[in-house]
Amino acid sequence: MTETPGSTALYVQDVTLRDGMHALRHRYTVEQARTIAAALDAAGVGAIEIAHGDGLSGSSITYGIGAHTDWEWIEAVTDAARTAIPTTLLLPGIGTLADLRLAHRLGIRSVRIATHCTEADISAQHISAARELGMDVAGFLMMSHMAEPAELARQAKLMESYGAHCVYVTDSGCRLTMDGVRARFQAYREALDPATELGIHAHHNLALGVANTVVAVESGAVRVDASLAGQGAGAGNCPLEAFVAVADLMGWQHGCDLFPLMDTADDVVRPLQDREVRVDRETLTLGYAGVYSSFLRHAEAAASRYGLDTRTILVEVGRRGMVGGQEDMITDIALDLAGA
Amino acid sequence: MTETPGSTALYVQDVTLRDGMHALRHRYTVEQARTIAAALDAAGVGAIEIAHGDGLSGSSITYGIGAHTDWEWIEAVTDAARTAIPTTLLLPGIGTLADLRLAHRLGIRSVRIATHCTEADISAQHISAARELGMDVAGFLMMSHMAEPAELARQAKLMESYGAHCVYVTDSGCRLTMDGVRARFQAYREALDPATELGIHAHHNLALGVANTVVAVESGAVRVDASLAGQGAGAGNCPLEAFVAVADLMGWQHGCDLFPLMDTADDVVRPLQDREVRVDRETLTLGYAGVYSSFLRHAEAAASRYGLDTRTILVEVGRRGMVGGQEDMITDIALDLAGA
Repeated sequence: MTETPGSTALYVQDVTLRDGMHALRHRYTVEQARTIAAALDAAGVGAIEIAHGDGLSGSSITYGIGAHTDWEWIEAVTDAARTAIPTTLLLPGIGTLADLRLAHRLGIRSVRIATHCTEADISAQHISAARELGMDVAGFLMMSHMAEPAELARQAKLMESYGAHCVYVTDSGCRLTMDGVRARFQAYREALDPATELGIHAHHNLALGVANTVVAVESGAVRVDASLAGQGAGAGNCPLEAFVAVADLMGWQHGCDLFPLMDTADDVVRPLQDREVRVDRETLTLGYAGVYSSFLRHAEAAASRYGLDTRTILVEVGRRGMVGGQEDMITDIALDLAGA
Repeated sequence: MTETPGSTALYVQDVTLRDGMHALRHRYTVEQARTIAAALDAAGVGAIEIAHGDGLSGSSITYGIGAHTDWEWIEAVTDAARTAIPTTLLLPGIGTLADLRLAHRLGIRSVRIATHCTEADISAQHISAARELGMDVAGFLMMSHMAEPAELARQAKLMESYGAHCVYVTDSGCRLTMDGVRARFQAYREALDPATELGIHAHHNLALGVANTVVAVESGAVRVDASLAGQGAGAGNCPLEAFVAVADLMGWQHGCDLFPLMDTADDVVRPLQDREVRVDRETLTLGYAGVYSSFLRHAEAAASRYGLDTRTILVEVGRRGMVGGQEDMITDIALDLAGA
């Protein structure tokens, strides 16, 4: 699958409505979700992911209360999607098997099971359950920069062994440069069954979101995550319209129409951001320090509350090697720093 | 010079005050120029370029009237720069030998002579004159995507033969993907004297500004253009603070302090933009269509005047292969399209 990049049609999975939740603190209305899903579907994306930013049942005091239940959002997307596949995300420990079954009953036919990059073993039960439901299922190894390529590939191999059809390099901290992406896909190709698909989920904190996605495709990825206007945690995800423009210039097949995607990005999605999604002082520091992108809003809130520079908190979070799920520790760090 | 990227200290040339002029229609005050130059100098950049966005004597009805003369801006920068080298840009046909000599008298010790990528021969006189003045001089081959690598290298060889110490790949249209950058530097290395330095000037229209700069360094470039918050034509230049963050992560030497650059980018430079510098519908179309980045504001003005989609104008400009200096033809195209 790696000989001619993009010769296989790329499977573009939009994450505007899931990772993008972080950009507006999980506050999409059902109508906004429906409008965006319909536009994505009409523009030809392969799949549309929908859930709270932290996956099914992420809505909580710790992660942020959603404006709606996952079920209301899912119904909006399954309702609007005519050709695109409605997909969702589940983090074992946050979402449950019951959540997965309910999502399936509501029309979700593809799911990603996400774990920290060294914790693939906690995905076994959920990947198996998704397979039993007849779903397409992918393994999502978050904070992939925290595992060396060979170790990451061992974790990916576990997910494959549980039944995952696809495994991702998930650069949640956006700490990977192009070399780091290339090395991880090389390790995947050496370790995994050639029938297992590879995917890339890039963030843009280091302004490398499109570049890292391009390198991933050149290295064998066929599933590509992106979002309109980059809507997502931190400086956002790989911006969908920019990736599609580059993919067109590279001559890759992807099924998406560029100009309608641009229109939806600028006219519908960008105006919803309550904190501009861009590479700036704080979001760049996420990538620089290797911090989980969705920690941004929590760190900014803590910095504001305790009179700190957000960067000081993020650098300390990075130093401690904190991972997704430890959002509540950001307040502890801020208190320590403020008292120092 | 190509064996270990970044083992030679990179020469970072800031273009916030020259290419960045386009982001505020050439309206920097002298005080703003002084403040930004002082901050860049304190943060350790190697060189600071100053001039109207279209180079010395660019101020005109066609290109945009500058808020000040080049001489007023130059004095602000030479006044503020303690260790950074004050540099300028000259496009033969716009700037003259008299302009070059005056800039030199005001303290400019380094200049880039810019031509369209297939017109290096018109730089001979200005490069020679700069050498006679004892200046550091570089050749700047604009719209480098419009010449195949071997042809671009032949043009670079001409500039070298006239006395240029350095030759750039100048991706004014931001149409180059990483492969295109890599191929052009390979052609340069094969064609040029190893003593001739190589430089990269990237734009961010395809969201590849940082990635293309990284690839250039890996391919032998030691001079790197970047600007605070990407301030520049189109979606801007390679953002300086993002490049420095990535260069730090790559272990490259560059002499710049990241956090003060971030502060100046966010607190001083970004608030000056009268059109946000970002990858959006219009700026992405520049890269997609291969259009000179500084055409953006002219095309937006024409689209507004004649009730057109800016993209329609830009795609036609790209189709016609228009190059820098043909700004006045944008109105003709808009009239044609509006009448159609």
